[in-house]
Amino acid sequence: MMYLSCVIISWKVTARERVNNVKLLIKNCYLLPDDGDAAAARGDLAIEGDRILKVGDEGELPRDWKAERVMEGEDYLCLPGLINCHTHAAMTLLRSYADDLPLMYWLEKKIWPIEARLTADDVYWGTMLALVEMIESGTTTFSDMYFFMDRAAEAVEESGMRACLARGLVGTGSEAETGLEESKEFLEKWQGAAKGRISIWLGPHAPYTCPPDYLDKVLALAQDYRAGIHIHVAETKDEVEQINKLYGKTPVEYLKERGVFQFTTLAAHCVHLTAEDISVLAETGTGVAHNPESNMKLASGIAPVPQLLAAEVTVGIGTDGAASNNNLDMLEEMRTAALLHKVNQMDPLTLPAPQVLSMATGDGARALGLEDVGLLKPGYKADIILVDLNQAHLYPRHNLTSHMVYAAQASDVDTVIIDGRIVNGKAQSLDHR
Amino acid sequence: MMYLSCVIISWKVTARERVNNVKLLIKNCYLLPDDGDAAAARGDLAIEGDRILKVGDEGELPRDWKAERVMEGEDYLCLPGLINCHTHAAMTLLRSYADDLPLMYWLEKKIWPIEARLTADDVYWGTMLALVEMIESGTTTFSDMYFFMDRAAEAVEESGMRACLARGLVGTGSEAETGLEESKEFLEKWQGAAKGRISIWLGPHAPYTCPPDYLDKVLALAQDYRAGIHIHVAETKDEVEQINKLYGKTPVEYLKERGVFQFTTLAAHCVHLTAEDISVLAETGTGVAHNPESNMKLASGIAPVPQLLAAEVTVGIGTDGAASNNNLDMLEEMRTAALLHKVNQMDPLTLPAPQVLSMATGDGARALGLEDVGLLKPGYKADIILVDLNQAHLYPRHNLTSHMVYAAQASDVDTVIIDGRIVNGKAQSLDHR
Ligand SMILES: [Zn+2]
Ligand SMILES: [Zn+2]
Repeated sequence: MMYLSCVIISWKVTARERVNNVKLLIKNCYLLPDDGDAAAARGDLAIEGDRILKVGDEGELPRDWKAERVMEGEDYLCLPGLINCHTHAAMTLLRSYADDLPLMYWLEKKIWPIEARLTADDVYWGTMLALVEMIESGTTTFSDMYFFMDRAAEAVEESGMRACLARGLVGTGSEAETGLEESKEFLEKWQGAAKGRISIWLGPHAPYTCPPDYLDKVLALAQDYRAGIHIHVAETKDEVEQINKLYGKTPVEYLKERGVFQFTTLAAHCVHLTAEDISVLAETGTGVAHNPESNMKLASGIAPVPQLLAAEVTVGIGTDGAASNNNLDMLEEMRTAALLHKVNQMDPLTLPAPQVLSMATGDGARALGLEDVGLLKPGYKADIILVDLNQAHLYPRHNLTSHMVYAAQASDVDTVIIDGRIVNGKAQSLDHR
Repeated sequence: MMYLSCVIISWKVTARERVNNVKLLIKNCYLLPDDGDAAAARGDLAIEGDRILKVGDEGELPRDWKAERVMEGEDYLCLPGLINCHTHAAMTLLRSYADDLPLMYWLEKKIWPIEARLTADDVYWGTMLALVEMIESGTTTFSDMYFFMDRAAEAVEESGMRACLARGLVGTGSEAETGLEESKEFLEKWQGAAKGRISIWLGPHAPYTCPPDYLDKVLALAQDYRAGIHIHVAETKDEVEQINKLYGKTPVEYLKERGVFQFTTLAAHCVHLTAEDISVLAETGTGVAHNPESNMKLASGIAPVPQLLAAEVTVGIGTDGAASNNNLDMLEEMRTAALLHKVNQMDPLTLPAPQVLSMATGDGARALGLEDVGLLKPGYKADIILVDLNQAHLYPRHNLTSHMVYAAQASDVDTVIIDGRIVNGKAQSLDHR
């Protein structure tokens, strides 16, 4: 763990010097047009406290408004921070621990045994490592499901990140009741913590690990605490067969029957769906977290994303854990989504760049029930990234939306602002008046 | 073009300061094990002139051998440079110019009209931009097909890169004879140039643009100059239908009948093949350049790579041009290949990490007929990259082969050595004795 501690500790030292939110003006940066395909414009972006005050021509600055910090945006593209809708952050510790294996062998012989030995401290450090990686690569919100979540929340609070956190709940083993108890305590202690950056969700793991009576208990908690439900759904063909054998239903039908979708629900994966399942997700306003790289690496299948979008389901993008990806790079995940569905549909018009960028920003925020996150609009939370366009692979600049989806890499992300605070970036040193 | 010129000029200034080949010792770096799945070892790597003298336990240093430069390898993984088997380098100029469009509209209304207006100078600068991007991201050899190739060769010579260059040949228009003439001059002027770093190939564009009598002329040139053939093959279903309509054959059968495969051949794409086509490629020792991201983005299809590998065809990896990718990032291309074929086969054991890394290094070199390139072995050309492992997304270090394929990003590539010369990298400043 020595190297790991070193990188994190050095990052935390930097983090301590992070600038608190002030009146911040980003001058003359590139801004993407709303329709996505026209040329990028330039404009100023003003932040006050944790919110966006003005973007380009939108919004008004009070006559006596004076920025306390000014950043020159000349070579920067300003974007809403990326939203990773589904991950298991502490699984960074298992990155490259077990790859290229059959799914059940991977889970039963590799992942579950080592997870059983993870301590609360491991989860803290693993989450912190994920936070370094996510923030450096432009993610400003993530939705997590794991265990020892108290310690994950601690790491999130320290990092400045925004997060939806869920204690994973498995209803079939010895941990079933403990999990519910811990979820309750977790909700009471952390809901709305870190100045509102932390939201607590309930995390029933999956249809095949949560029998009906257990799901009912989870929903009773959701009712009491007005919490959302984050659950894996229809990830593999095996799961679909298993649920069909048990209940004579699809996973979506099973969850619908229990009443899960009456609550704000985030359904991760949704790889194997029927047309009827898609209608149910659409009618109930259920958000979907699409994890293309994890689904590819584990050979789970290809989610029917174009069909979900056609049915007006809100689809966000997630990386899943680093054991099945193996990074938490949302720029890469966007690109993979855009390319995968084009070839899968044999149609180059599928998932054009502006749509994929929306999935990774505003749509992801909506899937997480975050109403004032994910867009560069006055009144929205100031979760913003500045991408340094001065890279060989981002020349020429015919279309910056295309660049973000098809050409950019994580290291192009320079400055990261969350809740109005600069949590990472070279731009700190560009500060001047 | 101002920004473009700026980035390239600043890079060329740095390039002028590149260190010429000397006796170079990289001490105590990580080296991947041959079998790929065991833990990485540490060892020294010695370079003399343009060749590797010793790697780890392999090779012997003469007793009086003294390094003139020593680099500490502590946080570095040493790998053979990546080999981009198929691209059109100058198309960087068209990056993000036209995306998310139907293939024929994209070609006929966007790409071909602007290509018709490109000047020799444009090709020089576009190739130079590609060279910056490729070298920065760890590519040390590329195989190119385009026009104004004199100027592309000039850029390659200046950059220090290794390349196989082909003048693209279309046999159906007014350029048909000019192309042959230029290819001849190109062969005479540049074959073996830049101290052997440049190889010249013939570039008949594709079966559907090269009728039989034209192919015959190309092969006559190949015979006279002992040159290899770089050709697009079976990229789209349309091409397969068109060739079938014209000749009652598959593209591979058509080329076989003309005698193309009697020459060293690099077949780009090979998306739509019959089992018989695969046998032909295997029997004739034809190399295949697999371009997963371009094939996905243009919705061309998924090449039968596992089947090609099972038939023992040599398969390298390429990015294709930046108009259909949109970057020249071989680490990303490896990852996409590894993930795409797993989900396409619904088998997580397909294309494991060590195999994909071979495709992007040693196998790629073999596909290009480069016998002493692509491996870290004594006597091989010193085309080497050092990857800086000190990145959040590369912790922990359970398996470095997995890291390179599933987690690394282009910016992790630090030092790039081609033909024994350090052409890029922070490591220049680490130099000390
Ligand atoms: Zn998951
Ligand atoms: Zn091509």
